[in-house]
Order: sequence, then C-alpha cells, then structure tokens
Amino acid sequence: MDIIKPRTLSGFMELLPAKQAQMERMMEILRKTYASYGFAALDTPVIEDAQILLAKGGGETEKQIYRFQKGDSDLALRFDLTVPLAKYVALHCNELAFPFRRYQISKVYRGERAQRGRFREFYQADIDIIGDGKLDILNEAEIPAIIYKVFRGFGLERFQIRVNNRKILNGFYAMMELSEKSGDIMRTVDKLDKIGAEKVKVILMDDCGLSETQADEILKFIAITGTNAEVLAALEGYAGRNEIFDLGLAELKAVTANLAAFGVPEANFAVDLTIARGLDYYTGTVYETTLLDHPEIGSVCSGGRYDNLAGYYIEKALPGVGISIGLTRLFYVLDEQGLLNPELPSAPADALVLPMTAEPGPAIALAEELRSAGIRVQLYGEQKKFKQKMAYANKLGVPYAVLLGEDEIAEGKCSVKNMTTGEQLKLTPAEAAAHILAGMAANNGPVILEK
Amino acid sequence: MDIIKPRTLSGFMELLPAKQAQMERMMEILRKTYASYGFAALDTPVIEDAQILLAKGGGETEKQIYRFQKGDSDLALRFDLTVPLAKYVALHCNELAFPFRRYQISKVYRGERAQRGRFREFYQADIDIIGDGKLDILNEAEIPAIIYKVFRGFGLERFQIRVNNRKILNGFYAMMELSEKSGDIMRTVDKLDKIGAEKVKVILMDDCGLSETQADEILKFIAITGTNAEVLAALEGYAGRNEIFDLGLAELKAVTANLAAFGVPEANFAVDLTIARGLDYYTGTVYETTLLDHPEIGSVCSGGRYDNLAGYYIEKALPGVGISIGLTRLFYVLDEQGLLNPELPSAPADALVLPMTAEPGPAIALAEELRSAGIRVQLYGEQKKFKQKMAYANKLGVPYAVLLGEDEIAEGKCSVKNMTTGEQLKLTPAEAAAHILAGMAANNGPVILEK
Repeated sequence: MDIIKPRTLSGFMELLPAKQAQMERMMEILRKTYASYGFAALDTPVIEDAQILLAKGGGETEKQIYRFQKGDSDLALRFDLTVPLAKYVALHCNELAFPFRRYQISKVYRGERAQRGRFREFYQADIDIIGDGKLDILNEAEIPAIIYKVFRGFGLERFQIRVNNRKILNGFYAMMELSEKSGDIMRTVDKLDKIGAEKVKVILMDDCGLSETQADEILKFIAITGTNAEVLAALEGYAGRNEIFDLGLAELKAVTANLAAFGVPEANFAVDLTIARGLDYYTGTVYETTLLDHPEIGSVCSGGRYDNLAGYYIEKALPGVGISIGLTRLFYVLDEQGLLNPELPSAPADALVLPMTAEPGPAIALAEELRSAGIRVQLYGEQKKFKQKMAYANKLGVPYAVLLGEDEIAEGKCSVKNMTTGEQLKLTPAEAAAHILAGMAANNGPVILEK
Repeated sequence: MDIIKPRTLSGFMELLPAKQAQMERMMEILRKTYASYGFAALDTPVIEDAQILLAKGGGETEKQIYRFQKGDSDLALRFDLTVPLAKYVALHCNELAFPFRRYQISKVYRGERAQRGRFREFYQADIDIIGDGKLDILNEAEIPAIIYKVFRGFGLERFQIRVNNRKILNGFYAMMELSEKSGDIMRTVDKLDKIGAEKVKVILMDDCGLSETQADEILKFIAITGTNAEVLAALEGYAGRNEIFDLGLAELKAVTANLAAFGVPEANFAVDLTIARGLDYYTGTVYETTLLDHPEIGSVCSGGRYDNLAGYYIEKALPGVGISIGLTRLFYVLDEQGLLNPELPSAPADALVLPMTAEPGPAIALAEELRSAGIRVQLYGEQKKFKQKMAYANKLGVPYAVLLGEDEIAEGKCSVKNMTTGEQLKLTPAEAAAHILAGMAANNGPVILEK
C-alpha cells in the first residue's frame, strides 16, 4: 500500500495531549465564568450561506474567507462569531428574550498568509449582550467585571482592562471641527505606543492636514493620564461644549462608578483615551486588555458597544455590547512565553491502575471504585514487564500508580505509588481514593503562572 | 440599506438557547465520563489536506465530502474523527505514550442529500484506544463499561449494549467454506430485524448462491439467543473446528467475563450474533447500542476493534478499539421523541437580580456575592416597569428573581421570588444563596427522561 505522508496544514493548531489539557482548562474557565454572568451557550454552524456572511463586504474579509461551491450552494466558513450572531438574532428575534446574552467559544476561519503565531483556524471566545432597541449602560459597566474574572480565573494578576468611549472621541473631534478627519486621526493616534508622540504629530500635520495647534491639542488630549478619578476630572474640563462628548463622559463615569461593587480593583482597570478600536462599528464604551509584563502581545480581550448588530438582516435596531478573546493566539503566546503552569497535571488520568495478577477482576473493581470517588483512572491491561509499565506511567505523566498484586488482594488493599516522590503506601481502596484526591487538590494551581 | 433575509443552511442544526442548554449538558456528561476513564481530550483541525482525508478513497465519502481549493491548496472538511485521528497518531507517533487513549467531541461534515433528521454538519463523540503493535483484550472489555456510564449519565436505564466478535463470524464462515461470500452473507443477515428470517433465507439462496442446508445452518447460528452464558455455551458447540473462531470465542468470553466488576448489569448487555458492523475495518469485538423503547432509532453508539488504524500514513501497525456516538442525530431524535427532560432548568441564569433603586451599586454587590456562591446570576439593569421585568424573567425561564429595593437595602436583605411557585422570601444575601442553591439541587434531574 502506498503511504501518504501525514501532515497538519500550516496555520492550524494541533496540540499534543498535555498541551491540549491546558487548553481545555482555559476553555472550562471561560465557559464557567461566562455562564456565571448569565450568558447562554450558543452554537452556530461553521458553514453559512456566503451571501449572508459577506453581507457587509469589505476587502480583507472577502480575500481571507474560505468560500466554495457545493452543488448549487455558495458556501463559506465563518470568519468571526459576530456575523453568525447577527444572523441568529435576526432569524430568531421573536423567540429570544431581550436583553439576549450569549457566549460562544468556537473556531473561525481566515485564510491569511501563514506566519508564525498567525492562525487560519482559531478559537474565539465571545460574549455579547443584545438589546431590543435599547440597552442600559449597566451592561457596559459589567463587561470589565467579566474580563477581570476570566483573567483572574486563568491565574493572572498583572493585567489591565483599558476603557474608553467612542462618544468622547467623536465629541472631542466634533468640538475641534475635525469630525471628517476623525477616522484618519484615530488611526494615527493608535500608533502612539509604537512610534511616539513626535512622529504622531508629524503625521497628523503632514498626512491628515492638521494645523500645529490642532495637532498639539489632540496630543494634549490623549496625554491625559492618571488615576481614573484624575482622568475623569480632566475630561470635565472639556464638558458643556458638545452633547455627544457629554453623553460619552456620563457613560464613562457610569462604567467606572461601580467597579468596586463589581469587585474590579483599580489596579486592573484604566480609563485610556488612546483606545479607539478602529472599527466604525463601535459607538460607545470600548475595551482592550493588556498583560502588563507582555505589552508586545497587544490586546488579549477587546470589544465594545455598538448600535446596530444586524442591520444587514433586519430593520429593527439591535444595540449591543460584546468582547472577544482570540483564544488560540492567546494560548500560543502564553505557551511561547513559558507562562503556562508546568506544575499542573497534564496526564489524561490521575491514577493508573496496574493489575499484577492474571485475573483482572479485582483491578477492574478497584478502578471503578476510584472513579466513583471522582478520580480519573486508566486501567492498564497490557502484558508488559513491570519496568515497562512504570516507563509508561512516567511518559504519560500520571501522578499516581496503583498496584494490585496477590498480596494486596489478600489484604483488601492496594499499593499507591506517588510517581513524583516515589513514596508507596499500602491502603484500602477508600484510603487510596482519599489519598489521591488530597494529592490532586494540592496540585491544583493556576493555568497561567506569572513570573 | 438592502436587507438580506437571514437563514441557516438546511442540514445544519442551530438550537435556541433552552435546547442548547440540554445539548451542553449532554456534552459535559460525555466529557466527564470519557475523562474518568483516562481518555485525553483531543482537538484536530476541521480542515485537512484533501489527499490525506481521502487516502482511503471510496465512493460515498468522495461524493459527500466538502472539498475546495484555497490558493494552491486542495482542502477538505473532515467527514469523521477517525481519519484525523489516524493522521494525528501517525504524525505524532514518537511523542505519544501507547496505549494512547483519546476522546474527541467535534463537528464533522457530510454533504448528504438533505432530509429530515439527517445532518450535513454534526457532532461525533468518539473514544479510541490505540496500541503500538499490540493491544490487550482488557481494552475491548472496558468499552461496554464506558458506554454504560455514558447512557446512565444521560439518565437512561432501558438500553442495551449488543456485542459480537468479527473473528467468530469470520471463523464460522470459514468452517462452512463460505469465506469468499461472507461479505454478502453478513450484509444479508444484517437485514434480519427488518425483513425476517424467511426473506433472508431466500436472498441467501437466490442472490448469494447458497444451498438450502447452508442457509439453514446460518439461520440456525444467528438464531442463537438467550442469556450471555447460554449464548457462549451454544458457541462452545462450534469450537475446535477453526482457529479464528476459537480465538474470537476466547475474546468474547474475556469481554463478557468481567462485566460485573465493571459495574455493567446483564440487563444492559447482550451477546448478539447478528451484529456485524459492515466495515471491513473491524477485526474483533464489535458494539452497537440500542434504546429498548426506541428500536426504530437504530444504534446510538457503535464501534469495534480494528487492527490497522493508520496504514495509509505509516508502516507501523496500530491496532485499536473505539466507539462513536452520533451526538447531533441522537439529540435530534431524543428531542423529537419528547425524551429530553422538560423539568430541567433551561434558563442561562439561576437568578435574575433586579435593582429597584436608581443607584445599582448594592444590586451589583449582591449579584457578585451570589455568583461567588456558585449561582449563575444575571443582573437586569433595563429601565422597565416591574411587570415587564417579571415578563422577561418568565420568558427567560429563570427560576428565581431577586429584588433589591430601598427597604431591603435598609434591612441588609433581599427579596427572593420563586418564579414557579410565586413564593417570596426576605432573606440576607447568605440565606438567599443557600435558598437558591437548595432549589437548584432539588431541580437537578436527568437529561433524558424515560417514559
């Protein structure tokens, strides 16, 4: 038979079991945290009608999308979870209760040029809250709490949720009579971290056609920093000159007002006037999240408030607020930076039960008893030498081996070997279960370990 | 703006939130059960190189597969989880510990003609145990225990795991010098349930060219029924005439010998000589699982032992045993039959916290306190009339509403309303958490409710 060389396509993540175990932990934390805030799990097809996915059009999307014919159908793979959500809400509008809160942790597809750390298939972990016509600002205020819980759940402390409001920016540029140029200006200002204020000023004047006074005024505005109270106080100085600005400031105050009640420490939250989120889509609060020790990663959780989720599919205005975590890229970067906790058990089982007699019955019953105590147990039935069995346990990384020979069976006990320390104890099945569970509990650290 | 009518492609399941909640429960039971037997979670790409997916070729697969070009690449969507597993094991062979046990619950794609209850995108929930050259029979014996735990986990009692061994069938047809015709014979015998013994006999004689004696001998063989002990005893009567048969009988005995130790009641397990599993792929134990009250559904969990997982990709022989649950179809059928437990909470939150004051701070803090007790809480901030808030709570199906007005805040309490009974209690936050958790625990029935 001809052999075809196996390979996985480039740009597609495929993890070995120990790494996958870490990824599964992160997904479980995401699911639990999102669910704890009352978001419903949602699952939509990977394949949709291409016309529907591409309703908005736009250059990059059209180029990157996986689109193909099957029979007479013009099909495409989803490139994000927002467009399928818009379709879903438009389609099931009458059956949903609004505000409609959903989370979705699913794969999306973008045929980008392959490069290190860029994926063509990747998970997004999204939440959105969709209102029917209106949506209270409290929803926007709640988002930082959810971001905070997710990253604390991963084990991180040194991260910052950076928040701004598009109405403040739009209002500010309107005050300066620069609304028409605001898109170009925001794209330029967005480069501040990378190229510095001097170069931003040059581009604002040369490319955007601003006067030096205007450029200075903008740089002064985005240079407003300090505690949240200080930034808000500085913004008050601009109030009363533009309605949109004032509305944005009121929203920003509402979002920051209840951080303590939501349990978000000030250290993990900052009003940051440089955050714009390029898309026209956003109309209110916008969010980015950075790891303080790894600013080079960029934002690991972004999103914002929008006014019209599903305008391509339905007349009704559906405002919402949502955030997205690019989970595959986040995982890749965390792994590359060595931030995944190597101490966490990565084996598929907590205990490997090794029958040492010809008759496997007692080992089977023991394995079942340990399982019913909540232990993940693999029964090892291969006819190998003891040394080979131990080598297997070590390669698997299983923390405990449980040996059951004639002696143990006669005594109603089993021998529990701690594979890390080498300690071996003869215990009853109930004692063995308690011993293993205690070891597992002690070994239950965070997924991400800050250095 | 032009409106594009939203739709979901036919053959693609997209559930409303309450139904999705049931599906999520089933997935969690599958993940936990598979993990408890020491299977590692695996995730492989949806898109693979088409040449690799189609290495085996074969008519139906080639017709149904979603295959397309992107740039110079010939791509396809996986049509099962076994071929990607074969690729994965061949590719990562040196990094894996064997036996390698993995589970995967993922979507697969088949462009079948759309018809009721047939899906083009559907979940499979698979486990496989792969050996490196050898694999002990104990692994085949363990599979019924896992199937049993999964379906009991779903809440079912009235199901039967039906087991046979391909070596017994192959050995039997070899004894009868009918090996060459065994494929045709097994396909005919497989129709026994549908068309009856008389018609099977006619086809065996007319189409397969068997003598009446041969046909009678086959019908006599597959008519062997009774308790497992009775069937095994009857099979002993054929022993000693063919090596393959004897080996199969020894395997079947080993698989049935430890059922009690594995915790599988005899009522849920039957040796059934009519089970053949059409594929040439299987070489030993084969499994099917039927719901006793719904035989029309067919097998809801099937699989078996094979000798060569990845022969298309690697020279090394990788034997294994695996089973697959067609989860999307199972869910569809259970729902259609009205077997999904309607009593289970289907709301995305256990409690809806309603601030009744202008200042949301106390309600936010209360919601966070309930969440940290393990309750899924939605905070409702919309400015609506009380009646509308209650209508929302009812539409969402949330079991508890928690009201927080001036009076409650002054007393350090909150009003917890049971949305089913209408009972309303004024409780401290800690009492409220305990009250809601107790209600949730009482409301935690099985996913599937037998009638």
